[in-house]
Amino acid sequence: MGNLQNDLIIRAAKGLKVERTPVWVMRQAGRVLAPYRAVRQQAGNFINLVKTPELAAEVTIQPVDILGVDAAILFSDILVVPEAMGLPYTMDEGRGPWFENTIRSEKDLLQLSSAPVTDHLAYVTDAIGLIKRDLNGRVPLIGFAGAPWTIFCYMVEGRGSKTFSLSRAMLQRDPNLAHDLLSRIADATIQYLKAQVEAGVDMLQLFDSWAGILNSEVYNVFIMPYMHRICEAMKDTVPLTVFAKGAFFSLKELSDLRCNTIGLDWHTSASWARQVVGEDKTLQGNLDPAVLYGSFEQIKTQTHAMLDAFGEQRHIANLGHGVYPDIDAEHLKCFIESVKEYQYKLDQ
Amino acid sequence: MGNLQNDLIIRAAKGLKVERTPVWVMRQAGRVLAPYRAVRQQAGNFINLVKTPELAAEVTIQPVDILGVDAAILFSDILVVPEAMGLPYTMDEGRGPWFENTIRSEKDLLQLSSAPVTDHLAYVTDAIGLIKRDLNGRVPLIGFAGAPWTIFCYMVEGRGSKTFSLSRAMLQRDPNLAHDLLSRIADATIQYLKAQVEAGVDMLQLFDSWAGILNSEVYNVFIMPYMHRICEAMKDTVPLTVFAKGAFFSLKELSDLRCNTIGLDWHTSASWARQVVGEDKTLQGNLDPAVLYGSFEQIKTQTHAMLDAFGEQRHIANLGHGVYPDIDAEHLKCFIESVKEYQYKLDQ
Repeated sequence: MGNLQNDLIIRAAKGLKVERTPVWVMRQAGRVLAPYRAVRQQAGNFINLVKTPELAAEVTIQPVDILGVDAAILFSDILVVPEAMGLPYTMDEGRGPWFENTIRSEKDLLQLSSAPVTDHLAYVTDAIGLIKRDLNGRVPLIGFAGAPWTIFCYMVEGRGSKTFSLSRAMLQRDPNLAHDLLSRIADATIQYLKAQVEAGVDMLQLFDSWAGILNSEVYNVFIMPYMHRICEAMKDTVPLTVFAKGAFFSLKELSDLRCNTIGLDWHTSASWARQVVGEDKTLQGNLDPAVLYGSFEQIKTQTHAMLDAFGEQRHIANLGHGVYPDIDAEHLKCFIESVKEYQYKLDQ
Repeated sequence: MGNLQNDLIIRAAKGLKVERTPVWVMRQAGRVLAPYRAVRQQAGNFINLVKTPELAAEVTIQPVDILGVDAAILFSDILVVPEAMGLPYTMDEGRGPWFENTIRSEKDLLQLSSAPVTDHLAYVTDAIGLIKRDLNGRVPLIGFAGAPWTIFCYMVEGRGSKTFSLSRAMLQRDPNLAHDLLSRIADATIQYLKAQVEAGVDMLQLFDSWAGILNSEVYNVFIMPYMHRICEAMKDTVPLTVFAKGAFFSLKELSDLRCNTIGLDWHTSASWARQVVGEDKTLQGNLDPAVLYGSFEQIKTQTHAMLDAFGEQRHIANLGHGVYPDIDAEHLKCFIESVKEYQYKLDQ
């Protein structure tokens, strides 16, 4: 924190006073910026880009230069963890990730490596070293991992799904196997996040992208213990954000986690979230990503309305989900600038 | 109502006393029953089945005989309305519906027919006539339509989508065109629902399958006026259920609609929904469809827990969404029987 020229986001996460609301965007490192697409082409494919530290570092830093965000987020993929656990995957343009091997029975667990996942993830920690050197303290670097339920879904299904039926069926039919796998994922995730902290990340975010498919009882009883395990293991390291997309039904339980910040999607109102979460945590979010399809004027108006709703402290401005791939970079930039400008207005 | 031997669901919808909770299942007419698959094969494809009144009637009645549900639901498709408005579609196994022509600009509206949609939907009212004759008053028949936002999405995108970006972008970029299209859809839907009532349906359900992608402000300000228009138009006909999947954020506004019943998905708890909706409406739902992957014992326990949570009156038992296609019919039957058995237990 001491070596950072802009530590707004760290202070906001810790509940310390900020002079304006910090802002960053999920998937800012990639997708909508032309220079990203150039590096992506150079890498040949997405997974090569993730595994080449120099290129991953370059696209991580691009949005800091181009968009003026208050944090960089590591360019990587949540699926490097299941791969390091023993399940390689490919990324098909348009169709998304695909795992040839999956975990659907006790014997499938034999595919999993007993070595620490960090043995296979040096390309991530190498990238973090390069990014920290090149950022040179301008803004903090956010590291991340997928949450156990989301990684479990990929390891069981082998791909994305509308209903995640195989994964939800396993929770019902073979809870012991499900707990065994979730526990291994949680432990691997802790190893991975600790390695990211050692390599120099300043903050962490845990993404539970598929939380919203479950019901509250399953999420609270079955999944939450693994969320607690990770948060407890990381509590003395760097500020941690938990973003469980769609899990409004477990917001109260999420707010009991030992983390600093709760990420919100665009379905959850600021006032309701604050009431449920209480005053002790920072909230992150949550502009509807579709607002960026609007005009500059619409983006500015709706961004300012969001900032009004969250208030000046304990808020990290963001979209309610990753930026959509067909958003114009100038519209994304307008969102970032609308956040910064709003605060300057208050200072008058 | 007077001619029905089992009018539990009508009484529950109207808030009249019932001796046990009625139960039916979305997509019960199709998907998981072997005799359905036989008729489906006979029809050649899904759209032929929808358009052949004798076959549509047959699969509508099957679950009444096989599962013992307290209502039949018309076997049809929400997309017959946009087709009748002028946009034909095909249904590709696995990939879902596809419209060759879409509405993305003012001039695309010229494709839409000015004739009443009911001119093109005689196959539906014919099927209703056959079903009513063959049901012979055993249970009520539920008719349905897609809600304006969901139909709008298909007419704009031409297919399903993860983000419905074209539709959400149109709300931002061309609100006049969006309102024009939504208004036409609402009017066509009213014509269609009135024709269903004239043909003999005893209840209606409006499905807003994609409500959950929006934010509450857009849903309340942009979409809700069309929901009100439909509910006002139908209020003196038969009991109406509104099911806006994922729209927990607008539950309060939905409860202000002139309808009898609010459908709930499995993310919304009974107690919270009752608190938000108040006492004047019936609630429908909401067992997690994935519970049916469990054992008979698990299904029974979780169904009874749901019934405990909703209480004995002003509740229509259902899953929180359509039954998944890979569910064993015996497990679905166990759900139905668990609802019926629970009430008998209370009578002791």
